[in-house]
Amino acid sequence: MYLGIDLGGTNIAAGIVDENGKIIYKSSLPTLAQRPVEEIADDMAALCFGVIDKSKYTIDDIEAVGIGCPGTIDSQNGTVIYANNLPMRNTNLCKMLEERLHKKVSVENDANAAAFGEYAVNGNNAQSFVLITLGTGVGGGIILDGKLYHGFNGGGGEIGHMLIEYENSLPCTCGNKGCWEAYASVTALIAQTKEAMEKDKASLMNEWCRENGKISGRTAFECAKKGDKTAAAVVQKYIEYIGAGLVSLLNIFQPEIVMIGGGISREGEYLLGPLREYVYDREYNKYSEKRTKIEAASLFNDAGIIGAALCAQEI
Amino acid sequence: MYLGIDLGGTNIAAGIVDENGKIIYKSSLPTLAQRPVEEIADDMAALCFGVIDKSKYTIDDIEAVGIGCPGTIDSQNGTVIYANNLPMRNTNLCKMLEERLHKKVSVENDANAAAFGEYAVNGNNAQSFVLITLGTGVGGGIILDGKLYHGFNGGGGEIGHMLIEYENSLPCTCGNKGCWEAYASVTALIAQTKEAMEKDKASLMNEWCRENGKISGRTAFECAKKGDKTAAAVVQKYIEYIGAGLVSLLNIFQPEIVMIGGGISREGEYLLGPLREYVYDREYNKYSEKRTKIEAASLFNDAGIIGAALCAQEI
Repeated sequence: MYLGIDLGGTNIAAGIVDENGKIIYKSSLPTLAQRPVEEIADDMAALCFGVIDKSKYTIDDIEAVGIGCPGTIDSQNGTVIYANNLPMRNTNLCKMLEERLHKKVSVENDANAAAFGEYAVNGNNAQSFVLITLGTGVGGGIILDGKLYHGFNGGGGEIGHMLIEYENSLPCTCGNKGCWEAYASVTALIAQTKEAMEKDKASLMNEWCRENGKISGRTAFECAKKGDKTAAAVVQKYIEYIGAGLVSLLNIFQPEIVMIGGGISREGEYLLGPLREYVYDREYNKYSEKRTKIEAASLFNDAGIIGAALCAQEI
Repeated sequence: MYLGIDLGGTNIAAGIVDENGKIIYKSSLPTLAQRPVEEIADDMAALCFGVIDKSKYTIDDIEAVGIGCPGTIDSQNGTVIYANNLPMRNTNLCKMLEERLHKKVSVENDANAAAFGEYAVNGNNAQSFVLITLGTGVGGGIILDGKLYHGFNGGGGEIGHMLIEYENSLPCTCGNKGCWEAYASVTALIAQTKEAMEKDKASLMNEWCRENGKISGRTAFECAKKGDKTAAAVVQKYIEYIGAGLVSLLNIFQPEIVMIGGGISREGEYLLGPLREYVYDREYNKYSEKRTKIEAASLFNDAGIIGAALCAQEI
């Protein structure tokens, strides 16, 4: 048994995870990210003991603990170098949890941990695997020969910050402009939806938003399925934006599997069908018999806990 | 001792290469690519025996033979799957040379072989290394943990076909549009130079071309150094195009070393200085103490022979 902790700016989630990536029991509590890191670590440990208590296991059944954490992580040394929404700078988070849990603890970037989770559970031991998570931003993780790719300094795998638009490009939260994230994140989709709604007041999307309270990543998809042409155009363009970055990733990695994660992947074939068509038509390696599989991820919010736990298996 | 063969659409070059990547003796002859592949293989073998004869070594001193070949290569099976300018389709080129030379023969994509050569000679055992060759196209090779990265089907590493411009993009020879190659190759630089010369008839570049016979990749650089403002603007924009793709590569790989190859790298710091500034300002991982080294490659045309030979060392 392993413990996986998904530490976010808003919530801390933790779960007991078995060797196959199945969550036995999980729970969560608020991060309250403004307080000192020692208090956050105390609550992370308390949460771990809590999920153990609620399960049929004891602390002795836990072989190791893994943390997934946003930001720049030095997983070799167990430190959080920099995290935007958490009070950590070169913080040895592993040591803090080891002192509290008396177990070996590993830390990994949260997007990397999620990728490792999806790979371990659904990756069929692919030789090369890329998870792309479409959410507030575009996150990702790269697994080559069964191992997370980190780059020489731990900062690799920031695939959301590949450039897809050099001229007339949108600004990105990273400070650069033209990043894939600025076009293919759900945040970007919502902006694209809003713009289209303002241009076409008769679009069904306006009515949908009045009924559902607000614009979301689902607005354009739901209305497109109901035959709204403006919504369908938003969806088509958004899929092309995803595809534009995917073509680059395929040309660079020719990965055996690419998985699309985040809530939007619940759209399934409605998203994946046109996406595959776009990408397979444009990738460089069009004539190979072996083509990258483009699939939907399936662990959703559990990917973080499961991935963190399975990363701990690797220490 | 190893034999390296750089098989191109125009010439076949071969050399005896020692364990450290030093060429002992090299020679070349025309490929005459329209003839049957058996004849080309005969000439490749004859060239090998020729370079051995001219050296102080005999065939018994040769441990293995490596070929660098353009196109899609299955280096595991020794076959050329597809090569644009050569009469080969699923051709087992290794077997053909093994029958003629009675040595173990390996084959690798020519850009990959060149990258492996630069890495082996100048890469200081970097954990991760990317060579970008700016020429007719933008080629490249990726070396991770000392091994060439191929992707699951041998088609990976086509970094010239990363997208850098989604809207209003230039067509690429690969059939897609907006590829890095369409902006950052020397072919693209020549087109950019030509366009600027036509707009500014007073630019020194026009005179330079009359003196030197034709536009080349050097035109804008030479004239910029002499103070021509139009030329300087071409150079600046071209460096930004190179930088745009480099930022993506750094965000994905955080490689320990990136090397810029091709004739243009002879511009040295005049190219690399502003390129580093552009990239380091824009990469995601701006706050890490460990930054990717951006350097000029040094083997130039010999990279193919040396790299092919050193790839043979790996069989």
